[in-house]
Amino acid sequence: MEAALTAGIGTPLSRSAADALNSVDLTALTPGTPAFVGAVERVLTSFFTTRREIVDPLGPVFVDAAEALAQFVVRGGKRTRPGFAWTGWLGAGGDPAGPDAAAVLTACSALELVQACALVHDDIIDSSRTRRGFPTVHIDFEDRHRAAHWPGDGAAYGSAVAILIGDLALAWADDLVHEAGLDPAALARFAPVWARMRTEVLGGQLLDINGEAGGDESVEAALRINRYKTAAYTIERPLHLGAALAGADDDLVAALRVYGTDVGIAFQLRDDLLGVFGDPAVTGKPSGDDLREGKRTVLIAEGLRRADPESAALIRTGLGTDLSDADVDRLRTVLKDLGAVDDVEGRIRDLTHSGLNAIAVSTTTGPAKKLLYDMALAATRRTA
Amino acid sequence: MEAALTAGIGTPLSRSAADALNSVDLTALTPGTPAFVGAVERVLTSFFTTRREIVDPLGPVFVDAAEALAQFVVRGGKRTRPGFAWTGWLGAGGDPAGPDAAAVLTACSALELVQACALVHDDIIDSSRTRRGFPTVHIDFEDRHRAAHWPGDGAAYGSAVAILIGDLALAWADDLVHEAGLDPAALARFAPVWARMRTEVLGGQLLDINGEAGGDESVEAALRINRYKTAAYTIERPLHLGAALAGADDDLVAALRVYGTDVGIAFQLRDDLLGVFGDPAVTGKPSGDDLREGKRTVLIAEGLRRADPESAALIRTGLGTDLSDADVDRLRTVLKDLGAVDDVEGRIRDLTHSGLNAIAVSTTTGPAKKLLYDMALAATRRTA
Repeated sequence: MEAALTAGIGTPLSRSAADALNSVDLTALTPGTPAFVGAVERVLTSFFTTRREIVDPLGPVFVDAAEALAQFVVRGGKRTRPGFAWTGWLGAGGDPAGPDAAAVLTACSALELVQACALVHDDIIDSSRTRRGFPTVHIDFEDRHRAAHWPGDGAAYGSAVAILIGDLALAWADDLVHEAGLDPAALARFAPVWARMRTEVLGGQLLDINGEAGGDESVEAALRINRYKTAAYTIERPLHLGAALAGADDDLVAALRVYGTDVGIAFQLRDDLLGVFGDPAVTGKPSGDDLREGKRTVLIAEGLRRADPESAALIRTGLGTDLSDADVDRLRTVLKDLGAVDDVEGRIRDLTHSGLNAIAVSTTTGPAKKLLYDMALAATRRTA
Repeated sequence: MEAALTAGIGTPLSRSAADALNSVDLTALTPGTPAFVGAVERVLTSFFTTRREIVDPLGPVFVDAAEALAQFVVRGGKRTRPGFAWTGWLGAGGDPAGPDAAAVLTACSALELVQACALVHDDIIDSSRTRRGFPTVHIDFEDRHRAAHWPGDGAAYGSAVAILIGDLALAWADDLVHEAGLDPAALARFAPVWARMRTEVLGGQLLDINGEAGGDESVEAALRINRYKTAAYTIERPLHLGAALAGADDDLVAALRVYGTDVGIAFQLRDDLLGVFGDPAVTGKPSGDDLREGKRTVLIAEGLRRADPESAALIRTGLGTDLSDADVDRLRTVLKDLGAVDDVEGRIRDLTHSGLNAIAVSTTTGPAKKLLYDMALAATRRTA
């Protein structure tokens, strides 16, 4: 074994994912734009290439699994979380023309790997069959089991592989942070926020599962799930991570976190309304989808809180069942008539206002204030 | 929200798990002894206490889940992986009376959290109902679902919670490394080895699942699973992590890794023999348990490689079925007569010899050489 082991000593790994940004002008990046999305994807693609050094010796079965994770990650999304992290860094005075910028954007991109773990595992938990128009990871591997004509339980095999691929994403998220090239002081500021963020999102998911299983149906419980599963994870902690990298003071961090929490919750409340009232032609999801899925949102909790026993029974017995379009319409009318919709619209308005106000009176840099303003309106006034 | 957010800024966390070692004499610790196990458990218990600062704000549902993880981790095991990591550090000249010792033992203890993730997720994958005499985590939460008289699928709920608890363990493993108090240079040496170790164990588990599902039944495939799922993860990389913390040179790292790989594979081969031939009174497991479970070991692969079509069919059709004691005896005789048992015993002998030889000619410190010698014999000559 000696030769192979001696050849494998080479730590640290020979390349950093941050190298992929060498030719990218980081001063021109605006979160949400194709240029920003492209830069994050360069980092991620490059990172997956660096993993080959560890993955390849295990052989083609593991190479295929790692490739499935890479495709899942590179295929997806608007890179919202790296966008907020980058904005937090800019807002706390980070210099996109400076020597740290590539390392910062690389570390911010690691949020997409935490997200990959959350989605892959969530899809197992929710028994979801498709995501972004492709089979979910567990369904993909169930299909491969079938195609190979293996004996045994293909669904169990698919779930097993997807559990491990999600774990791999979570482990690799850390690896990307460590290999980003941050200086030790910046890494030391980043790490405790990163710790809180990961624990909070797992806690938020747990509360969500518990709520759906039969737990607390109060407005407070629904708001707490929003706070940890969505707001903290999508906006508050990403902004905090970026601000920590830039060495922001406590007051600025507090302002960014107020914005992140308030706008994050408002974002989810808008999502809840769209899940019931959204136009299928715009959202791309069936009308009233959340009602059929039985999602326990603030909107539903507020409706139940306001309902007389008869209306409450109508909501409870309808939720999570195969509702007809007429049933969906009836539930919509009930929720409107109870004032639950106006209540949620009011919360969105108030939260957006308080979040924006926290930023307005803070020391956030001017360009980042503008970005945060635009991002808040995009998150809370959207129709899809 | 402002008051709560301002109060929560306090990063870094207010205490380190390493503080738990303040009153422990680290110069007297020998891996495998109750004193060593106790020191690792002090670190872990203290670490779980530090998490309360993040966990408590999410409320009692998450507190209970975190508590379930803590009980699982604190309940378990011989702390084998921290023991090898500590030995690697001692062997590369780490000074247990020096100022870094507590941070090093704390970082080594984080291996137990990676292991918790592996076990919790493995138990879902294998549908195991008990571990260490207690219900597995997914069964525990399935039981809680039933006790709460919730509607819906309790087994799915249990698996969902256990997926998240395993994720939490993996995230917390990193947190413990980061909060151990290592100096930045030591952390930078540790991180790439830590990255390889986690990826390799996930890869090893994937190969194992694939092998059981219907993949490659060759001796080489079984050895590769041993190498990555057991040897690299249990001995090679823990030693490497410890050596990296002590700043070992490449030659010493190579020697420790040869020992870890060879002794680690030998350890698993001994386990495979005990799983078929072990005395139930000593192992605590039913006689021939691995045959009934259908484990694809090197022993089985070697038997199949040597078998004529008739014997091969006997092995293939018997494995993984509800064998009678007479069936088990028949398969044992077949494996012995084919020479597969002697082959595996020969491999154990050769691997133990080559592993010990690598250490003997290395610059490993004297006391660590003695420890590694004892640990190799304990791992490869045991009867349970």
